[in-house]
Amino acid sequence: MAFRYPNGKVYQPKQNESPAKKKPKTDISFSNRGKSLEDDLNETNDFYVANGLANIYKKPVPIQIVKVEYPKRSAAVIREAYFRTPSTTDYNGVWNGYYIDFEAKETESKTSFPLKNIHLHQIKHMQAVVVQKGIAFFIVRFSKLDRTFIAPFRMIEKAWLDMEAGGRKSIPLAVFEEFAEELTLGYAPRIDYLQVVKKFIANK
Amino acid sequence: MAFRYPNGKVYQPKQNESPAKKKPKTDISFSNRGKSLEDDLNETNDFYVANGLANIYKKPVPIQIVKVEYPKRSAAVIREAYFRTPSTTDYNGVWNGYYIDFEAKETESKTSFPLKNIHLHQIKHMQAVVVQKGIAFFIVRFSKLDRTFIAPFRMIEKAWLDMEAGGRKSIPLAVFEEFAEELTLGYAPRIDYLQVVKKFIANK
Repeated sequence: MAFRYPNGKVYQPKQNESPAKKKPKTDISFSNRGKSLEDDLNETNDFYVANGLANIYKKPVPIQIVKVEYPKRSAAVIREAYFRTPSTTDYNGVWNGYYIDFEAKETESKTSFPLKNIHLHQIKHMQAVVVQKGIAFFIVRFSKLDRTFIAPFRMIEKAWLDMEAGGRKSIPLAVFEEFAEELTLGYAPRIDYLQVVKKFIANK
Repeated sequence: MAFRYPNGKVYQPKQNESPAKKKPKTDISFSNRGKSLEDDLNETNDFYVANGLANIYKKPVPIQIVKVEYPKRSAAVIREAYFRTPSTTDYNGVWNGYYIDFEAKETESKTSFPLKNIHLHQIKHMQAVVVQKGIAFFIVRFSKLDRTFIAPFRMIEKAWLDMEAGGRKSIPLAVFEEFAEELTLGYAPRIDYLQVVKKFIANK
């Protein structure tokens, strides 16, 4: 993941060399090979911030820190910590006075998006965001198909409520094709979801 | 800070028993003794969320994870990680369609707030928030005086720019008394900063 220089500084892999776990696959087009959705979104958000277009960030992973060492002449080292369940979504920020809040998910499935990828607390959080007049949505990538959609929260919420009422546990690709917007990948920004968000806002 | 039960679950101290570092001091009134500003704000934000009044959270501390162990039958343990510099402020969220973004700081000084408590990247972040029509401010506690103020970003920014132009490196208490709003501590919510934010918005 990263290593530590002798001076205590931490090596941070550049985004385009990081995810060794996501090897290019033969059925993925050149445009996306080797990149995770998270990398694409981080690049995009950096582009938005650098160009004053929006101010949207991924939140850090919540950690419960138990033990920290303070070595002489180098940075504090966390020696025992645990991952905590996030109480909110991963991304939020502001564009033109609008509060933006979203979650990004990838699925390996070629036919549907399994709702087990979403947690109840994320649904509840987004419901609260909508009550406060924020803009909530999901970005979902079908990684084997190299297709990425931006789905309004209402679409995901409807499927969630259907599931809770005994309905199906996944959202078919066809539902994304009909009720979500497909995002095309570009160079800069990598994945210009803000254009679709503007449409969502204009159509409200 | 916390310890780990044999079953791998992590003990999380309750907010009102946590900050041993902030011992009650004789010159601090009963209302605030033993509580850090962060505890007060977390309680307040929990109250806002629980009552559907706003959706504002503290962001997790950013960590660079280097080594993780996966013991059998218990939670993953982070064995080497480092603190990273946050690129944004600590708190953000949404109220009634407004994007809310703030930083909370405590000072031991009885006479002025040292600007070294603020980092350049936080100023730049808040400037970007204001460009995107978000609401940015600081909550500053003079802990020895048991007084807490909410200061519009513009007040802090002005002092920052003065400092960069060779001016003083701290903001006198009198400036807070004149240009910020003092917050009174209550029970629920603990520190009702949202009421002042509403005034800021109404006066824009």
